[in-house]
Amino acid sequence: MLAFTVKNKKLVALNKPLPQLRPRWALVRVLLAGICNTDVEILRGYHAFRGVPGHEFVGEVADVKGVSTKEKSKWLGKRVAGEINVSCSAYNYRPVCAFCRRGLKTHCARRTVLGIVNHDGAFAEYLALPLENLHLIPNSIADEQAVFVEPLAAACEILAQLNMKQFREAAVLGDGKLAQLIARVLRTTLPRVVMYGKHKDKLQQASAAGIETQIVRGDASDLKRVKDNFALVVEATGSPSGLALAQHMTEPRGTLVLKSTFHGAAPVETWPLVVKEITLVGSRCGPFAKAIALLRSEKVDPPPLVARTFPISEAPAAIQYAQQPGVMKVLLKAE
Amino acid sequence: MLAFTVKNKKLVALNKPLPQLRPRWALVRVLLAGICNTDVEILRGYHAFRGVPGHEFVGEVADVKGVSTKEKSKWLGKRVAGEINVSCSAYNYRPVCAFCRRGLKTHCARRTVLGIVNHDGAFAEYLALPLENLHLIPNSIADEQAVFVEPLAAACEILAQLNMKQFREAAVLGDGKLAQLIARVLRTTLPRVVMYGKHKDKLQQASAAGIETQIVRGDASDLKRVKDNFALVVEATGSPSGLALAQHMTEPRGTLVLKSTFHGAAPVETWPLVVKEITLVGSRCGPFAKAIALLRSEKVDPPPLVARTFPISEAPAAIQYAQQPGVMKVLLKAE
Repeated sequence: MLAFTVKNKKLVALNKPLPQLRPRWALVRVLLAGICNTDVEILRGYHAFRGVPGHEFVGEVADVKGVSTKEKSKWLGKRVAGEINVSCSAYNYRPVCAFCRRGLKTHCARRTVLGIVNHDGAFAEYLALPLENLHLIPNSIADEQAVFVEPLAAACEILAQLNMKQFREAAVLGDGKLAQLIARVLRTTLPRVVMYGKHKDKLQQASAAGIETQIVRGDASDLKRVKDNFALVVEATGSPSGLALAQHMTEPRGTLVLKSTFHGAAPVETWPLVVKEITLVGSRCGPFAKAIALLRSEKVDPPPLVARTFPISEAPAAIQYAQQPGVMKVLLKAE
Repeated sequence: MLAFTVKNKKLVALNKPLPQLRPRWALVRVLLAGICNTDVEILRGYHAFRGVPGHEFVGEVADVKGVSTKEKSKWLGKRVAGEINVSCSAYNYRPVCAFCRRGLKTHCARRTVLGIVNHDGAFAEYLALPLENLHLIPNSIADEQAVFVEPLAAACEILAQLNMKQFREAAVLGDGKLAQLIARVLRTTLPRVVMYGKHKDKLQQASAAGIETQIVRGDASDLKRVKDNFALVVEATGSPSGLALAQHMTEPRGTLVLKSTFHGAAPVETWPLVVKEITLVGSRCGPFAKAIALLRSEKVDPPPLVARTFPISEAPAAIQYAQQPGVMKVLLKAE
């Protein structure tokens, strides 16, 4: 099959054999894959990942191993999205780790992560995932929506982590792909969500989805200019300067959700966290079922965030394009 | 009265008039005052504070204004500790601010702070505080214990912020004055508390109070050497390097309490907070009643942490001494 790996900070095409399946794993033909900032970080050498990147996808089940004919027929040919953390049970490790025992599979101590940690990902014609990671996509949800299930689930993680009833409004810092999804997800439960971003055109996209917007410069000068305070602030700028502004804008005893996972140490003054007794909540992967429900209800509609779709064979050009300033979601499509 | 202010990074003696009292405020004769790292930061020019520093004290009520003779007699001559945040109600501001309305007086938007923000503090013969900030000290608690009520309350804030029943053990990073109190307070509710510090002698003091100890270097090499993981980690090193180790040692979905309020930006990688979905809780001033109860019960005994007591007239020498390596709590005593 055609697959892409990272070499010298570029994606290069390979002809790879189909992935081997363990019992209760599925072979999935990738229909659409999304390019995420994490993929760009992998390209730049972070995560020390040498395999096939890509962790956002919608695919079609092509094969299943080690299950009854009846169970197999339930899956074959069906469209699925897939959770990216592959935990103890999928590898049949016994005993399972302390986190799997507590049901925290996304924090499994022995996990591999699709396209990120020791597990080939979605920038390929096929990928393999355990059945327990797969979620069927209802017919009413198009491929162009379903490919957003993974990042949308990450946005939904905020709803799972916080008691949202205590908030009436929120600020989202950042106007990129993830920030856009987060603002839309929060807007489904809060009457007021304000996005603070650097790019007029991106803010306009949020505006069209019922989100208030404010332009900022994305540097230290924002600390003097921005006077707004929120009980809930989500930092999703993907840049080191975001945390300082987020602390500045979080009111005393407020909650600051940290979503940015850029690598590299940024100088941060942390005393405002202490003086204001802010609760900072790190937030990563989230509930796929909730994301699928939001797409099905049409309360969140991500496809307008797609900048361009490339055929999978043009993946190297696609990931270069995705790094251009102002470019939102770039997709790879099966040929 | 004799008082000390900051000039050219030193304490200098002044002869000041007694503080004026508003209605329902008390004049307090300082019996003992403690020197805290925040006082040293004030000396170095942080906080831009120009008045009399000092916010840890035990004193004796010398006068009360604007109350009945009966209420006055309840206070006169009594020993007290005092909460340091002076909020809307004490200044008779109407309407009170949004935080006072919610009962969060320590976060009052218009607060002054004893010896730190717009309010002369305890490095003087007398100070003034509203009655609502004062707590009577029971006779069974000696001055040398009572002077620890303020920092001990700050340690107790952790118990007020977290549901401690979810934890069975905790790590405390740092072996200084505040870290020592925090470890002792946590030890009253947890069967196991481990202190990670740089100083053998300080760790021995913790050891004598039933706390496990581990020596660390206090630099980036700790990230490679320390393999321990905790569901609860308290960062109280007072230094920028502490946060990286604290993140490293907090297990996925764990809680990291941030107590250090040093000023200055330290380069911090924040992605572990996101990947491990750590909840970081900023923690500042705490409940005086709880601290007094702990002293009364003798479950926490701070006086062994006193390095030396100076007469108040020698405050400049005392604060120099407090900055020597390895020196724990330094006290100033009324003459």
